[in-house]
Amino acid sequence: MKKINLSELNNHINEEIVLFGFVDKVRDLQYVQFIILRDRTGIVQITVEKNNDFSKLNEIVKKLKIDSVLKVYGKVLVNEKVKLGGIEVIPSNIEILSEPVSEMPFYYKDLNGVNLDTRLDYRYLDLRNERNNLIFQIQSCFVKAMRNYLENNDFIEIHTPRLIGSASESGSEVFEVKYFDDKAYLAQSPQFYKQMAMAAGFEKIYEIGPVFRAENSNTNRHATEYTSFDLELSYIDSYLDVMDLEEDLLIAGLQEVKNRYGEVIKSKFGVEVIVPKKPFPRIKLQDLYQELEKRYGYHIPEEDIGDMNSETEKLTSRYAMEEYGHEFIFVTDFAKTKRAFYHMRKNDIPQGYDLLWRGMEITTGAQREHRYDILVEQAREKGLGKDVQYYLEFFKYGCPPHGGFAIGIDRITMLLLGLSTLKESMLLFRGPSSLIP
Amino acid sequence: MKKINLSELNNHINEEIVLFGFVDKVRDLQYVQFIILRDRTGIVQITVEKNNDFSKLNEIVKKLKIDSVLKVYGKVLVNEKVKLGGIEVIPSNIEILSEPVSEMPFYYKDLNGVNLDTRLDYRYLDLRNERNNLIFQIQSCFVKAMRNYLENNDFIEIHTPRLIGSASESGSEVFEVKYFDDKAYLAQSPQFYKQMAMAAGFEKIYEIGPVFRAENSNTNRHATEYTSFDLELSYIDSYLDVMDLEEDLLIAGLQEVKNRYGEVIKSKFGVEVIVPKKPFPRIKLQDLYQELEKRYGYHIPEEDIGDMNSETEKLTSRYAMEEYGHEFIFVTDFAKTKRAFYHMRKNDIPQGYDLLWRGMEITTGAQREHRYDILVEQAREKGLGKDVQYYLEFFKYGCPPHGGFAIGIDRITMLLLGLSTLKESMLLFRGPSSLIP
Repeated sequence: MKKINLSELNNHINEEIVLFGFVDKVRDLQYVQFIILRDRTGIVQITVEKNNDFSKLNEIVKKLKIDSVLKVYGKVLVNEKVKLGGIEVIPSNIEILSEPVSEMPFYYKDLNGVNLDTRLDYRYLDLRNERNNLIFQIQSCFVKAMRNYLENNDFIEIHTPRLIGSASESGSEVFEVKYFDDKAYLAQSPQFYKQMAMAAGFEKIYEIGPVFRAENSNTNRHATEYTSFDLELSYIDSYLDVMDLEEDLLIAGLQEVKNRYGEVIKSKFGVEVIVPKKPFPRIKLQDLYQELEKRYGYHIPEEDIGDMNSETEKLTSRYAMEEYGHEFIFVTDFAKTKRAFYHMRKNDIPQGYDLLWRGMEITTGAQREHRYDILVEQAREKGLGKDVQYYLEFFKYGCPPHGGFAIGIDRITMLLLGLSTLKESMLLFRGPSSLIP
Repeated sequence: MKKINLSELNNHINEEIVLFGFVDKVRDLQYVQFIILRDRTGIVQITVEKNNDFSKLNEIVKKLKIDSVLKVYGKVLVNEKVKLGGIEVIPSNIEILSEPVSEMPFYYKDLNGVNLDTRLDYRYLDLRNERNNLIFQIQSCFVKAMRNYLENNDFIEIHTPRLIGSASESGSEVFEVKYFDDKAYLAQSPQFYKQMAMAAGFEKIYEIGPVFRAENSNTNRHATEYTSFDLELSYIDSYLDVMDLEEDLLIAGLQEVKNRYGEVIKSKFGVEVIVPKKPFPRIKLQDLYQELEKRYGYHIPEEDIGDMNSETEKLTSRYAMEEYGHEFIFVTDFAKTKRAFYHMRKNDIPQGYDLLWRGMEITTGAQREHRYDILVEQAREKGLGKDVQYYLEFFKYGCPPHGGFAIGIDRITMLLLGLSTLKESMLLFRGPSSLIP
C-alpha cells in the first residue's frame, strides 16, 4: 500500500493507502467514531463504524489521546456529508506509534494568554501551532528564493570558520571559547573571510550561517546568535553596484514569498507582502536629518549625529512611505567615525549605506577598501592593531575592488510577517539568559 | 560601455567593452606589449602597440606587476594569430585598481615543493591556484545539487543554535564558551534540535552549518570545526527509508557534479566521478567481519568489536568494489554499546548504519527512538542524566517516528576529488593549532 501525504488524498479515491499523522481530534459517538488526523500538508477524517467488524479498532479509538501519532491503513472514499473536503478514510488497521505521556502545559492551538517565555520553554509544542509552523516554511522559502537568485548569477556558496584566533572587528561583544590550552573567539560575522575570498579571486560568494554577538541586552531585535545571509562581490565600480544587487535580491525573495504564501500571510498574519519596485529611494544622511526635522520636528541627539538610532529608523521609513510610497529606503553618507575601518572612503565619506525596511535597519552594505596601504591607515586610525594583522595581509598581493552586505534572516522574517519579536522568527532564540532548550 | 566576464568575449566581437581582472602575465617586446588578464571565467590577451598613440598605455604596461588588478576599456577583435582563442582586446584605457605591495612568499601557480602549512598560512594566495579554486566551485555545486534534491522533495531548511546550554550528546570533546556570567557549549551537531523539529511536526528538514569537536588530534580526516549537511525526516517505517533517501541524495549530487565538472575533475584531479547505482550494497557488521577475515585475513581487534576502525573501513570499500563493483557500501547492525543512546533498537540491535565511500565513513544514519519511556531508559543506560533532560522533554507529548543522517561536506569533497587531507577541502582549516588566518 502506498504511503501518501494528506494533501494527496484526492488523487487516491477508492484506493488502499497508508497515512501517518498526529491525532488532531477524536469524537466517539453512539454509532460511529471519528478521528481527525493531521500531517504537515492537511487534515482528514477517519471514520470507524461501531460494530463487530470494527471492534478491535473501536477499542483503539476509544482510548486515543490527542497528539498521539498514528499509522492508518485504509481506503479513501468520497462522502459528500464529510465537511473536510468531502473525503473520508475507512481504516482497516490503526497503529499507535507514539503517545503523550504527560498533560500538555498549554494547548498549542490556543496560545491566547500563554506567556511568550512559556511558549519558548516548550518550543516543540509551540511550533505545532499552525501559524508558528508557517513562519519557518515562509522563512525557508524566502531564503531559498534569494539563494536561487544568487546561484543563477554565478555566486558560489562558501563556508568560513566561526572559530577565530583573535577578537577581530570590534573587540567588544565577542564570545570567548576555551580552545585547548589557548583561547578562541566566535565570529561576529564572516566579513574578513568573505573579503579573503575576494582577494583569492572568488569574485562572487555568499554564505548563510550563524554569527554571534556577546551583547548583554534584552530587546526584541537582538539575539546573541542569529543567522546571517552574507554576500560579497568583486569588480564593482562603487557601492551603487552593491545596492543594485541588494534590490534585485530582495525583489527575487519577496516575489517568490508573495507567489507561494501571499494569501496565507494576509489571512494568518494580517500583513500584505509587497514586492518593491526599483530603484528603492535613496537619501543622504544629512538630507534625511533635515527632512525629519522639517516633517516631524525630530532632532537627532548629539551623540547619534552621523548615524541613525531606532527613532530615526522608524521616522525614515515613515518618510519613505509618505514621500515615495515605498517600504524600503537606502541611507548613505554616514560619518566615518560611525563606520567600520574597512569601508572605502571617498572625500572622507564612507562608501556604504544602511537599508531600512518597515522602520528597521536590515542591512549595512559598502564598498570595502581593497588597497593595502589605505586599509592599514584606516585600521590604525580606529586603534586596531595586532588583532587585524592577519586580515590586513589578505590585501598585500593585489585584490579586486569589492563590496557586499549581510541580512539577518530572522530579522527580515520578523519584519515580513509583522512579528513583534525575533523570539518568534528564530527556531530557538538565544539571548543572555536563553540557552535552553 | 558594457562590463563583461572574460568568458563572454566571443559575444562581443568588435564591441567596446570593459574588463576587470588580475594581471596573469606581461610581455614587453620591442614593438608591442602583451598583458594576459585573468578573471574567474577565463583569460584574454590585451595587445598594446608601442607607438606614440599608445605612449601613455605603454608607460603603464612597462611598470605592471603580476597580480595587479586592472580595469581595461577596449575593443574586442578577432586575430587568428592569438593563441588564446583567436581573440585580443585593444585597450583605449587601463586603470590599475590594486597593486601588490610585497613579494609573494611563493608563486601560487607552482605549488610543487611548497609546504602545505605554508600554503594554508597564505590561503588567500593558495586559493588563486586554479585547481585549488576549483575545489570550492565543485563543492558548492555538489551541495547545491543535494539541497535542490531535498527542496524538490518538500524539505525545508532550518537554522538551529550552535550555542547550547549543556554539554549534550557525549560530554567530552565539547568546546566551552564564556557566556556572560555563565557557561555555554558549542554544538557538536544539530541532532537534538533536528529531532525537536520532528516532535514539532516539521516532518522534513535539512540544515547546513558548522559543527564543533574539541578533539585534540591532528589527522587528515578530523577538524575542530567543519560544515555538516544534516537532515531528518518523519513517518519512516524503518532506517531502510533513511538509507533509500541517502542513496537518492548522493546520486543527485554526484550526477550534477559529473555533468558540470566531470571532465575537469578528470584532468585536474585525475579522478573519475562515478554516479552510483541503486541500491548500494548493504552488509551486516558480523557478516562483514567474516568477509574481511576470509578475503583479506583481517581480524578486528578486540576493542573495536561491534564497530569499525579506519583499517576496517578501507577493507570494506575494497570488498564493496571487488564484490559489487560499487564505490559505496552500507554497514548495519552495529553493537548498541558503540551507538548513541538515541538510536532506535530492535531486538537490541541499533536501527542504523554507517555509509562508506572510497575507504572512509561518510555518514552515520539511523532511525531515532521517538518513544519517551524507551528513550529515557536508553539515556539512563548510557549514564546520561541532567544534560539531556531538556532533550528528553521533546518526546513527552507525542512524536512521529523519524530518522536522519549527516554528511560532512568537507569530507565528501576530499573523497570526491581524491585529496589527501581535509585541509585542502576546507576554505580555512581549523585544528588544535590552526586558528589563523
